[in-house]
Amino acid sequence: MIRNFITSVLFTGLLGGMITPAQAATTCQSSTHKSCAKFNSKSELIRPTGYREWIYVGAPLTPNHLNNGKAAFPEFHNVYIDPASWTAWKKSGKFRDGTVIVKELVSVGSKKTFSGNGYFMGEYLGLEAMVKSKKRFPKAAGNWGFFRFTNEDFKGLKTVAGVLPESACLSCHTPNAQQDNVFIQHYPVLRGAKAMGEAGTGGK
Amino acid sequence: MIRNFITSVLFTGLLGGMITPAQAATTCQSSTHKSCAKFNSKSELIRPTGYREWIYVGAPLTPNHLNNGKAAFPEFHNVYIDPASWTAWKKSGKFRDGTVIVKELVSVGSKKTFSGNGYFMGEYLGLEAMVKSKKRFPKAAGNWGFFRFTNEDFKGLKTVAGVLPESACLSCHTPNAQQDNVFIQHYPVLRGAKAMGEAGTGGK
Repeated sequence: MIRNFITSVLFTGLLGGMITPAQAATTCQSSTHKSCAKFNSKSELIRPTGYREWIYVGAPLTPNHLNNGKAAFPEFHNVYIDPASWTAWKKSGKFRDGTVIVKELVSVGSKKTFSGNGYFMGEYLGLEAMVKSKKRFPKAAGNWGFFRFTNEDFKGLKTVAGVLPESACLSCHTPNAQQDNVFIQHYPVLRGAKAMGEAGTGGK
Repeated sequence: MIRNFITSVLFTGLLGGMITPAQAATTCQSSTHKSCAKFNSKSELIRPTGYREWIYVGAPLTPNHLNNGKAAFPEFHNVYIDPASWTAWKKSGKFRDGTVIVKELVSVGSKKTFSGNGYFMGEYLGLEAMVKSKKRFPKAAGNWGFFRFTNEDFKGLKTVAGVLPESACLSCHTPNAQQDNVFIQHYPVLRGAKAMGEAGTGGK
């Protein structure tokens, strides 16, 4: 990976143009930097890797205890955007074609700590992703495709995932998400950095 | 920043040694890469910047409604570690000298959404940091110093912060934190990557 990175800096960055720190951070660089999404010959999305080093945007929680023990999504969702698409978002305030957003499912591990009662992250349960691609999803709202790598037993992850039917995700995302099928209303990092450049990266 | 980055790659990375993607991502590189913490002549910590592009480790929450309306920390805490120290953590499972961990305070913005009742992040309220430095905090537990940039009105941030007395933070961190005064029991990203190398970065 390091060798690939240095090669990329040399040919894409220093000799070929400009490279940004965020782009340099990704572990999913293609030679064209177009997208972190990789598909196999069956049009299945290959499980993204290294996303805990992507840009975190927020962690919504709808716990069981506030939903009569029957929450549709009882776990924490750690949500990340890939670094190159984050760079585009800071500049344009839009999700570029090729954007990958992942949510990692994490259990509510405990509900009490020394500082009080609350919610604290336990163990990883799963991984889901949405990919924006005009070429692959020309008819879907916003050209987004949705993928689930979560195993049925919430242990381990599938290595590939086929696109889910629109009824599984977009039917809720499209009418409720604040921008382009993404719930930026729940993601302060995206809201704060929207077309804000470096001012949105914190502390500036 | 881009200029500094390219200079750094040239002299520190390609000519002088090895650079990792995580190190390249930091917006707080010094010429020696020793620490993201910068102090002024009064030994005050200069507010870190760009931390929303650091490595997110977890988001604990102790909301008012679970603590009789009087939570000590009623907001979300988005917690990040600086990239170079994350690289060290992945390798050694220890917090290196120079580590900076920040927590950004974010309000509970709403408690209801289309998918159920819960907790959703609202607006930024403040910023706190802990810095591990044997030189600056030789007598403190773990050599950690704690700093608060949060304004009294929870709007805006202070530009510099003096070290807090140990009674303000360490008195709780030291006896309760799982490792070296850091609550890794609440941070799945740190637990999962402890001395795990790239296997801890997600999806591998």
